[in-house]
Amino acid sequence: MFPSRIFEKWWLRAFIALVVFFVWQICYAINRVQGLEEEKTILQATVTDFYYIIIIRDHISLLPRVNRTTPFIYFITPTHFRAAQKADLTRLSYTLSHVPNLHWIVVEDSDELTPSVAEILKRSRLPYTHLNARTPPTQKMKYSDPNWTLPRGVDQRNSALLWIRNQLAGVKNGVVYFGDDDNTYDLRVFQEMRKVAKAGVWPVGIVGGMFVETPILAENGTIIDFNAVWKRERPFPIDMAAFAVNITLILSNPNALFSFDVPRGYQESTFLDNVGIHRYNMEPLAEKCTKVYVWHTRTEKSKLSKEMIEKLTKKRGFNELEAHALGVKI
Amino acid sequence: MFPSRIFEKWWLRAFIALVVFFVWQICYAINRVQGLEEEKTILQATVTDFYYIIIIRDHISLLPRVNRTTPFIYFITPTHFRAAQKADLTRLSYTLSHVPNLHWIVVEDSDELTPSVAEILKRSRLPYTHLNARTPPTQKMKYSDPNWTLPRGVDQRNSALLWIRNQLAGVKNGVVYFGDDDNTYDLRVFQEMRKVAKAGVWPVGIVGGMFVETPILAENGTIIDFNAVWKRERPFPIDMAAFAVNITLILSNPNALFSFDVPRGYQESTFLDNVGIHRYNMEPLAEKCTKVYVWHTRTEKSKLSKEMIEKLTKKRGFNELEAHALGVKI
Repeated sequence: MFPSRIFEKWWLRAFIALVVFFVWQICYAINRVQGLEEEKTILQATVTDFYYIIIIRDHISLLPRVNRTTPFIYFITPTHFRAAQKADLTRLSYTLSHVPNLHWIVVEDSDELTPSVAEILKRSRLPYTHLNARTPPTQKMKYSDPNWTLPRGVDQRNSALLWIRNQLAGVKNGVVYFGDDDNTYDLRVFQEMRKVAKAGVWPVGIVGGMFVETPILAENGTIIDFNAVWKRERPFPIDMAAFAVNITLILSNPNALFSFDVPRGYQESTFLDNVGIHRYNMEPLAEKCTKVYVWHTRTEKSKLSKEMIEKLTKKRGFNELEAHALGVKI
Repeated sequence: MFPSRIFEKWWLRAFIALVVFFVWQICYAINRVQGLEEEKTILQATVTDFYYIIIIRDHISLLPRVNRTTPFIYFITPTHFRAAQKADLTRLSYTLSHVPNLHWIVVEDSDELTPSVAEILKRSRLPYTHLNARTPPTQKMKYSDPNWTLPRGVDQRNSALLWIRNQLAGVKNGVVYFGDDDNTYDLRVFQEMRKVAKAGVWPVGIVGGMFVETPILAENGTIIDFNAVWKRERPFPIDMAAFAVNITLILSNPNALFSFDVPRGYQESTFLDNVGIHRYNMEPLAEKCTKVYVWHTRTEKSKLSKEMIEKLTKKRGFNELEAHALGVKI
């Protein structure tokens, strides 16, 4: 046995105390290292994972990063059934899904929500609202009518405005834009519209029989005129795609709506009048209206037989594959 | 002074040795902990960073993740100057930039590369190749010609094929597709074309005066016919957008090219013949040709004045804003 008196020595007690202390420290350290090493492995795996996602998606980020304070864009799209509707909405969804902080409000001219439109909205992964509003038959154009015969999207845009006024009543920060389903948007137009304090305006390509319709600015940057050739006397001779309005103006002017009762070409002017905008307080954007970031493109109407037009008008008689191509339920 | 004989005691030596060992161990452990802690902080910051990028882009990922062994798609786009060219290419670039492992080969019908097209390619963040090939004046259509008067994209597609044969001679894995700049692509068509072993085929919406042009399958899944109404006697009565070919067929058949000397509507048939494809060994895709993932949309030609058509034809006389809208250098 170890002689017991040896424990009475001060140095042995100190020695044992030290050993215990060191062992404890080392155990603790080893434990800590193991813990950290595990955390590191997990973090590294996460980073690899993220890195992998990022490299795949990296060529997708066409816009600069956006933070939480960035105003939301409420992008209102009236849409009606036609041969290219599914194609046009599909294509538009791929543009919009590049845009952060965008809420897509799609309003169908139909008696009920179409599952095919719902699927496109869902697949876009955008925040969205899917509504429908049927244009009265007396206001509805025939297949052969040129597309300017009657105003389009009146009830649909109004539905979207009502939804905004009901659902977003408290919102202080955001921009409302009317974006048709067949137009072409350069992503930079979304950066522009986020700047809108009251109402912003910019040039639009290929519209009104011109290469570009644009506000004309004085040297000090205020809008003094527009270059439109058709109905220049309108208060705002511009296209629906040419402007965005701050959401506060929509909320504080609940009676500003579109109407079938205004002369042709006056939808934009009447609406802007009703939200209290004048030419002189519109904000010229897109580098002082020197850049074109939106085009009023239109998808060509297919040359169809009488029988096919009949099918389209009645929205029935399609085989399964045609129904899939056109986004029709059968 | 410390009595020197005390060092002769075995236990003191052992004690000192132990202390030195423990101190060394603890120093090492502390060092290791500090190191790990730093690494952890950095990794955590990286994760936060990535996480932030991911939440912004999350609604963008419309395709499942793809690994490195996924075959590349060589997407050949012939393009020519017109009012909507810039708009159409911009819009298409936003669709394609959702697709991983896609190499975009854009061939302009022009004497030189257009900076505006180059900018769209660059902004797409896709891997790309930008070429030009001028269609001979005798083969070039006038503004007023219907777009079926002459074959389109012949020299441009051939340039792309030559580039592939020169630059990708050793490539064993990949798919070649001819995708026009104004068509509409559902992202699912890209998943389909990656499956192509020799030549795949699928339905195309809104083409040839029909809602859908499609191969017709027997019950066992082989192609027995096509539903085309126009020139049904063609070996392949299908549109350029309806098929993709494995790159090995392009490389092993260097003489397969497009030509101005084939009858109207025979471009697809002649090319598929030349790469050694027969009806019976085409692979029917898009869920056995029951889904429509591509539409032969066309952007409407603007109604332009004589003076404007003259400007477009000569590609000059534009003001700065018009040049920006149309993608013209002035």
